[in-house]
Amino acid sequence: MDQNLIDFTSHVVDECLPGKSIDCVIIGFEEQQLKVLLLKWKYEDIWCLPGGFIRKDEDMDQAAQRILEMRTGLKSVFLNQFYTFGSKKRSKWNEEVQLTRMGHILEEIHGKNGKFAEWIKQRFITTGYFALVDLRNTAPHPDVLSEKCEWKSISSMPELMMDHGEIIEKALEHLRNQLNYLPIGISLLPQKFTMQDLQKMYEAFLKKPLERSNFQRKMLKLGIFNRHEKQLTGAANKAPYLYSFDKIKYETLLKDGIGFNY
Amino acid sequence: MDQNLIDFTSHVVDECLPGKSIDCVIIGFEEQQLKVLLLKWKYEDIWCLPGGFIRKDEDMDQAAQRILEMRTGLKSVFLNQFYTFGSKKRSKWNEEVQLTRMGHILEEIHGKNGKFAEWIKQRFITTGYFALVDLRNTAPHPDVLSEKCEWKSISSMPELMMDHGEIIEKALEHLRNQLNYLPIGISLLPQKFTMQDLQKMYEAFLKKPLERSNFQRKMLKLGIFNRHEKQLTGAANKAPYLYSFDKIKYETLLKDGIGFNY
Repeated sequence: MDQNLIDFTSHVVDECLPGKSIDCVIIGFEEQQLKVLLLKWKYEDIWCLPGGFIRKDEDMDQAAQRILEMRTGLKSVFLNQFYTFGSKKRSKWNEEVQLTRMGHILEEIHGKNGKFAEWIKQRFITTGYFALVDLRNTAPHPDVLSEKCEWKSISSMPELMMDHGEIIEKALEHLRNQLNYLPIGISLLPQKFTMQDLQKMYEAFLKKPLERSNFQRKMLKLGIFNRHEKQLTGAANKAPYLYSFDKIKYETLLKDGIGFNY
Repeated sequence: MDQNLIDFTSHVVDECLPGKSIDCVIIGFEEQQLKVLLLKWKYEDIWCLPGGFIRKDEDMDQAAQRILEMRTGLKSVFLNQFYTFGSKKRSKWNEEVQLTRMGHILEEIHGKNGKFAEWIKQRFITTGYFALVDLRNTAPHPDVLSEKCEWKSISSMPELMMDHGEIIEKALEHLRNQLNYLPIGISLLPQKFTMQDLQKMYEAFLKKPLERSNFQRKMLKLGIFNRHEKQLTGAANKAPYLYSFDKIKYETLLKDGIGFNY
C-alpha cells in the first residue's frame, strides 16, 4: 500500500468542501509554442491538469495557490479565475475515473461504500484558474498521485482526463479575448526577446499568421518596449534587435486597456 | 405555516448539489440609469439577487435559467457566467441569514439540527451569471420567498443580503472590461434610440462623462447603426436623429471584437 496516497486522501472528506474542485491551467511559451503544465497519473497513461479540493478553512483563491504548489512545486504564481465548469456530465466522468487503476487502489484503501467512496462519486463542479509563466524559471515536479509533471505543447496533447481538454481550450479562448484589449506576454517571454518571438507568441494564441511589418508597427506604437543596443560581433551585423518590456508603461496599459478609447 | 415555503424548501437537500448556488445579475437601462433586478425578502427589509441551487439532474447553466424564471418570471433571457465567489466568509454570512425572521421560520419548519439545517449552514460557493435586458419588455414578479421583485438603480441600492453588492459590482466590472472590445447595448436600449441615449448608457457603465462629438464620431465609425428619417412635425425640426442597431453588422463586430486589430 502506498502510505503517501493513504495520507493524501484520508482527510479530504472531513477537511474539504463537498462537490467543489479547482483546476489550474499553467501556460508557458517555448520553441515558438504555447505549452501547458500537465501531470501524468501513476499506473495509467492519462494526463491531467494540476487540481484538487478546497479546504473548509480557506478561500477558494487560497486553495488554488496551495493546490498548484502542492501538485507541481510551483510557488508565487499569480492565478486568475476564468470559468466554472458545472455540466452534469461531470458526474459520469467521475465514474470513469473510478474504473481506472488509481480508482481501484483508492477503493481498496477506503472501501467500496465508505465515506470516501460516497464523497468522491458525487458531481464535482470545478473552477478553472490560469497563469502565464516563464517556464525557463520553473522546476515542476510530480506529487503523490502522479509520476510525471511536464510541459506539453497545446498542438500535440496526450490523452487527457475527463473534460480537461475543454478546460484548457476555454482558458485559451479567454486569453484570446483579452488580447483584444490588453497587452499579454510579459510573464511568458524571457527578459529580452525579438519582435519575431513576440509575433510567434501572439500567433500561437490567435491561431493564425500575422503580417510582420503591420504587427511590429502596431506593437511598437504601444510604447511599452525598450529597445536594446546590438552587441557588435565584428561580422555583418544582421542580428535582430532585442527588446524588453517597460514594466511601468506595461502596467499602465494593462490598467487602461488598448481597445476602444471612449 | 406557509405551505408554499415548506414545499419549496423540503426537497432541496435530496434534489440539489450541496454547497453550490447561483446568483443572477439582471441589468436594465431606464431613465438614463443602469438598474438591477432585485427581490425583497418576506418579513425583512433585505433585498437580494434572484438565486438558488443546482438540481442533481441539470447542468449549472440550465439551473441558472430555471432559477431566474422561477424567482422572477423572466423567460428566454440569455445568461452569461462571469465569476464564482468562493470566499470562506460566505459561511459566516450564511449564519447571519439564519438569524433573520426567514431563518427562524425555516428552522421551525425543518428543525434546528435536522438535515435541512445541516445542509443550509455549510459554505455555499456561488456562481454569478449576468444578462442585459430591455426592461420595458419584462414583467417581473416575486416568488414564495419574496414579496417584491423590482428594478433598482445601481446608484441607490437598498440594503443587500450577504455579498450580493460585491457580486453586482463584479458583474459591472466585467461589463466595463467588455466595453473595451465589444459593442454592448443592443439588448438594453429600445429598438430606436438617440445617440444621447447610447452615450448615457456608456457613461453609466464607465462611471464617467464622455465628450459628445468624440463619442458620436467613434460610435458611428463602427458602422453598426441605421439612421432613421426624422418625422416632420411642421415646427422647427430640432428633434435628434433616431438610430437602431444593424443586427448583422453588430453580430459580426461582436464576433471580431473592436479592440486591437492584429
